[in-house]
Amino acid sequence: MADTMKCIVKARPEPDGLEMQERSIPRPSHGKVLIKVQTAAICGTDLHIFNWDHWSRERVHVPRIIGHEFAGKVVETGPDVEHLKVGDYVTGEGHLTCGFCRNCRMGDGHVCENWRGIGYDVDGCFAEYIVHPELNTWLNDETLPPHVAAIQDPLGNAIHTVFAADCIGNDVAVFGLGPVGLLAVAVLKAIGAARIFAIDWDNHYRMDIAGRLGAHHVIAASEKNAVDYVMERTSGKGLDVVLEVSGSPEALQDGLRCLRMAGDLVLIGTSNKTVSLDITNDVVFRAINIHGITGRRLWHTWYKMKGLLASGNLEVEPIITHRLPFDDFHKGFELMQAARCGKVVLEL
Amino acid sequence: MADTMKCIVKARPEPDGLEMQERSIPRPSHGKVLIKVQTAAICGTDLHIFNWDHWSRERVHVPRIIGHEFAGKVVETGPDVEHLKVGDYVTGEGHLTCGFCRNCRMGDGHVCENWRGIGYDVDGCFAEYIVHPELNTWLNDETLPPHVAAIQDPLGNAIHTVFAADCIGNDVAVFGLGPVGLLAVAVLKAIGAARIFAIDWDNHYRMDIAGRLGAHHVIAASEKNAVDYVMERTSGKGLDVVLEVSGSPEALQDGLRCLRMAGDLVLIGTSNKTVSLDITNDVVFRAINIHGITGRRLWHTWYKMKGLLASGNLEVEPIITHRLPFDDFHKGFELMQAARCGKVVLEL
Amino acid sequence: MADTMKCIVKARPEPDGLEMQERSIPRPSHGKVLIKVQTAAICGTDLHIFNWDHWSRERVHVPRIIGHEFAGKVVETGPDVEHLKVGDYVTGEGHLTCGFCRNCRMGDGHVCENWRGIGYDVDGCFAEYIVHPELNTWLNDETLPPHVAAIQDPLGNAIHTVFAADCIGNDVAVFGLGPVGLLAVAVLKAIGAARIFAIDWDNHYRMDIAGRLGAHHVIAASEKNAVDYVMERTSGKGLDVVLEVSGSPEALQDGLRCLRMAGDLVLIGTSNKTVSLDITNDVVFRAINIHGITGRRLWHTWYKMKGLLASGNLEVEPIITHRLPFDDFHKGFELMQAARCGKVVLEL
Amino acid sequence: MADTMKCIVKARPEPDGLEMQERSIPRPSHGKVLIKVQTAAICGTDLHIFNWDHWSRERVHVPRIIGHEFAGKVVETGPDVEHLKVGDYVTGEGHLTCGFCRNCRMGDGHVCENWRGIGYDVDGCFAEYIVHPELNTWLNDETLPPHVAAIQDPLGNAIHTVFAADCIGNDVAVFGLGPVGLLAVAVLKAIGAARIFAIDWDNHYRMDIAGRLGAHHVIAASEKNAVDYVMERTSGKGLDVVLEVSGSPEALQDGLRCLRMAGDLVLIGTSNKTVSLDITNDVVFRAINIHGITGRRLWHTWYKMKGLLASGNLEVEPIITHRLPFDDFHKGFELMQAARCGKVVLEL
Repeated sequence: MADTMKCIVKARPEPDGLEMQERSIPRPSHGKVLIKVQTAAICGTDLHIFNWDHWSRERVHVPRIIGHEFAGKVVETGPDVEHLKVGDYVTGEGHLTCGFCRNCRMGDGHVCENWRGIGYDVDGCFAEYIVHPELNTWLNDETLPPHVAAIQDPLGNAIHTVFAADCIGNDVAVFGLGPVGLLAVAVLKAIGAARIFAIDWDNHYRMDIAGRLGAHHVIAASEKNAVDYVMERTSGKGLDVVLEVSGSPEALQDGLRCLRMAGDLVLIGTSNKTVSLDITNDVVFRAINIHGITGRRLWHTWYKMKGLLASGNLEVEPIITHRLPFDDFHKGFELMQAARCGKVVLEL
Repeated sequence: MADTMKCIVKARPEPDGLEMQERSIPRPSHGKVLIKVQTAAICGTDLHIFNWDHWSRERVHVPRIIGHEFAGKVVETGPDVEHLKVGDYVTGEGHLTCGFCRNCRMGDGHVCENWRGIGYDVDGCFAEYIVHPELNTWLNDETLPPHVAAIQDPLGNAIHTVFAADCIGNDVAVFGLGPVGLLAVAVLKAIGAARIFAIDWDNHYRMDIAGRLGAHHVIAASEKNAVDYVMERTSGKGLDVVLEVSGSPEALQDGLRCLRMAGDLVLIGTSNKTVSLDITNDVVFRAINIHGITGRRLWHTWYKMKGLLASGNLEVEPIITHRLPFDDFHKGFELMQAARCGKVVLEL
Repeated sequence: MADTMKCIVKARPEPDGLEMQERSIPRPSHGKVLIKVQTAAICGTDLHIFNWDHWSRERVHVPRIIGHEFAGKVVETGPDVEHLKVGDYVTGEGHLTCGFCRNCRMGDGHVCENWRGIGYDVDGCFAEYIVHPELNTWLNDETLPPHVAAIQDPLGNAIHTVFAADCIGNDVAVFGLGPVGLLAVAVLKAIGAARIFAIDWDNHYRMDIAGRLGAHHVIAASEKNAVDYVMERTSGKGLDVVLEVSGSPEALQDGLRCLRMAGDLVLIGTSNKTVSLDITNDVVFRAINIHGITGRRLWHTWYKMKGLLASGNLEVEPIITHRLPFDDFHKGFELMQAARCGKVVLEL
Repeated sequence: MADTMKCIVKARPEPDGLEMQERSIPRPSHGKVLIKVQTAAICGTDLHIFNWDHWSRERVHVPRIIGHEFAGKVVETGPDVEHLKVGDYVTGEGHLTCGFCRNCRMGDGHVCENWRGIGYDVDGCFAEYIVHPELNTWLNDETLPPHVAAIQDPLGNAIHTVFAADCIGNDVAVFGLGPVGLLAVAVLKAIGAARIFAIDWDNHYRMDIAGRLGAHHVIAASEKNAVDYVMERTSGKGLDVVLEVSGSPEALQDGLRCLRMAGDLVLIGTSNKTVSLDITNDVVFRAINIHGITGRRLWHTWYKMKGLLASGNLEVEPIITHRLPFDDFHKGFELMQAARCGKVVLEL
């Protein structure tokens, strides 16, 4: 093993500001493992850091190795590591959690009181090697292809979102067909949603993928009124579940209007705008449930994901539209910026 | 049995507009029973009708016998009534439901697609007799006092609200100490909420009742900042559950801020205003669940209520502040208008 | 419409004892509809009556029109029928429930305190016409083929069984590949069970169908040890869920041994034998949950079924192995007796 | 701090075989804390070891410091301990869990694949000091009296048992009034069970405690038929929930017969006998759910316990019948042996 490794560093506090650098390979301390990264995927969060938006400027200190979606092999184990061994094929959960706070102990580790995110709070996985805590590491099935294993973070987001409500045999809409939205469509198909309404504002590239994944209806909201479309096809009663993945306040409001009485609105999309809601008429009198979703449930989401991947029902390949050499990372960011892609995976 | 009965009629489309009138006693048709009303309670909805507000003007056609909270005895059964008999001590669920739509069939009858409310859509229970469908009628325990049996509609609202989240052994705030808010405090006490924070804007009459019911903290939000108060007492982590019963947009916003990560906000209070929310930061990133509550679950709420009343743990007497003769109904409305009461029960 | 109809009557209290007879067409009374039967399916219960076993002799009074699985069209509505109309394409829930008892009101109508079964307690559906209560009737999607609509009773049994535990993305075994067991395999496939282990004693005809439905492992328990087989493929940890559909005490014991810690054993198979269990070691110390299943949940099961049939994921055609003219019913019973079939549907 | 400590050691592989010994005080290694024990309670498991029964002979290697129920103060922290500090008032969860296996990660840590019990697999808490892993340690409220904090293991068993089914506002029986059974009665009272039926074979000492805790009915099964008694008081319908804490096969069978349709049977009692059950008639056709319970859910049970203790509703003092000096431990074992006690707490 060499002493140094290549890694993608947010080097300068400005748009782009990314550089491929050479750094010392870190060593695993107590309870940690060293992982040789095989694949890594670019997240919307990485794009925020690339664009150096408000959130990034507040949260990220340069220089920082970015990236939090990956898969690789354990190559060294630190002291007291008991469950993992050299050679294990793993993916790191990108939210480092404390394991002790109420949320961790109650299955709400996705909102651990002390969590830090790799790739922004601490160094990340866009690197040949990463040190990761054993308790935050997931053992992959040997048969899972590395480019699929790399996207378990957003796939987990989608699974967390879908399982926040009862979607099986129910009519469900997905608002927003970015990578997480598309993955949600794939999950809905895998578990037998009755009718899947895949809705995007105008991205026909991604709408085509939704159709290939088995969405029963694919709608460009810029071209037709999504609420009217849904209501016509549900005898005016509305959907059982709406998954809001876009972050658009208008989509949220439309999604609420698309719901049947006692339906569920699941929110994972984010925005920097406030939303005005007629809570009394749209939520209280209609007995609506709203669920805020972030991250992945530890470890319910991961076990569900493992099982769905094993089932053969879950088809994610059409969503991994690009597999690029590690050195071509700038091309990956351009594709993400242009929204002309599903998931973009870097291969090391 | 006489041929006619006394009843309180919204006779004129104007504020107050209530009259005690004499009408023919109705007869029970197929699947219905005739009930001699023993007790009836005044609801906030009745006060809306009294005040002839926007909702009332849209919904209620005069003349209409008002009232929907009551208890009484079956005195006659219509054809094909199979489960009730003359002499049964009953309370009518005030939402008449169809029993056939998806919502009724799935346990969501509180939002039946075809529901009508007695006392505003059809004639109500502020009358010596009422005809009610057998399938919408509840058999009371013989030992339940009639003045308590009369308030099962709002008590059911409170139970529905409390059981929408996991309140047992958890820290819970109630925002708004009207009758339903006070009943929620009593229910929380009965089931072992860890700490109950009872919060009203400034109604000390009702805050005193909350204290007597066992609320651990009673707060006048007009006098101290409720969010700060709660945060200080929860080590800055916030509450497990907030029940918003006031309808105030500010209370809703404060309630959301009082919640811990992954907490539950339960909404039964109503308002004619929209609410502006920072959904991304306050709901999505904090993994909050919001539940809109209306009516009573058919019949989960009623069975829970029956059991809690039987347990001996549920103390509602301090909330029934006034028991008035039927003829003194105007005094009851005045008390409600002044908010110088808990529940007001009319006795026939 | 003619005055009389053909119907299959258990005419004599003896094995077989079935006759095609001519009877007057019944008229729908209050709240009931008259349905022209298009398709009907033979259930294991019908085979019990055919064989005139202990249960049948205790429960069924001859003469009795048998049969409880069917689909057809409403041709007449009785007084006060509000939700169904002539021409509606329907299936009757075979358990007539009261709608008033605790169980009906709490979503446990499958164990209604007053239920009676069509085709054994009252006249059934192996007839050109049947009168059925509106509230016990289900409106089918127009696109559902009648031979599929006829098997919703056993498909509902399978769905009720599968949804009694969390099977999605989990490893699940089905013990017993009769029609309900095969339908359970199809449902498990539709909702993304991780690995499906389909186990029968020795019926290779039905094991072949399980394979075609997508079971990941198909096992003849007479040829290899099912517990060992499962344990080898689960690293010695066992399955998440076992569905026991055979009724065999040995299968139940094996199923329990196949489970992981905190797993779920779902029981729908029946037997006239008692079962000896090491409750302490096999249930208490292993934190196992056991669920007794009978009938279909009203109406959760039916809505789930409707949605899964709409999804396109649920493939039941390979299980409907025989479609016979009504007059050939004896051939149907022979196939069932020989266990050389999946579901047998009679077409009128 | 001294170098040595007093501790109760199972010194000889024979009945009793307990000795107070002097040993070196252990030091906390990585991720562990040293706790000065203030109070410890004697469990039925300790009595098994005292009696040197079959289970003990198979499981326990002498010499072994016994005991697993305790409370105390952190007096030293090992390396990398992050959440606890010297002076913290704590109780150790007696099941040491791995935190990595499927069960730990899914909230089923009570059946961790790698668990070891303090006081039998490793040295326990009947000692002046104990080393315990931080991640298995619980921070007590400062206001909780140490003799109450010491019994959180069995109180947690009771809470785990009660919360395995919906007991609030429901009719519940407890079979077996040993310490865990009595604690279950106290929990049922705290959360508003409708009617609590406390049933023991013949221990009137413990039945008296059940009555003082608020059980609505207290029954000696040796004197009257418990099933008949329950059925008479439930209109022949039976109970919503039965908690079987005795381990007696006959109590389990009676408990099953006491249940209503769709009721829940929760099993925590253990026995070395098999049980014969009519699964078809008593479980399948009656839609019964059976739940095997062991240990405490990590950490749902502990948070529920913390909240119920804070609520003021949970009264456990009447169950702590004896508080003895540490040196009088033999007297404690005699009381346990004679079943003339509730919980026996040793004070150091």
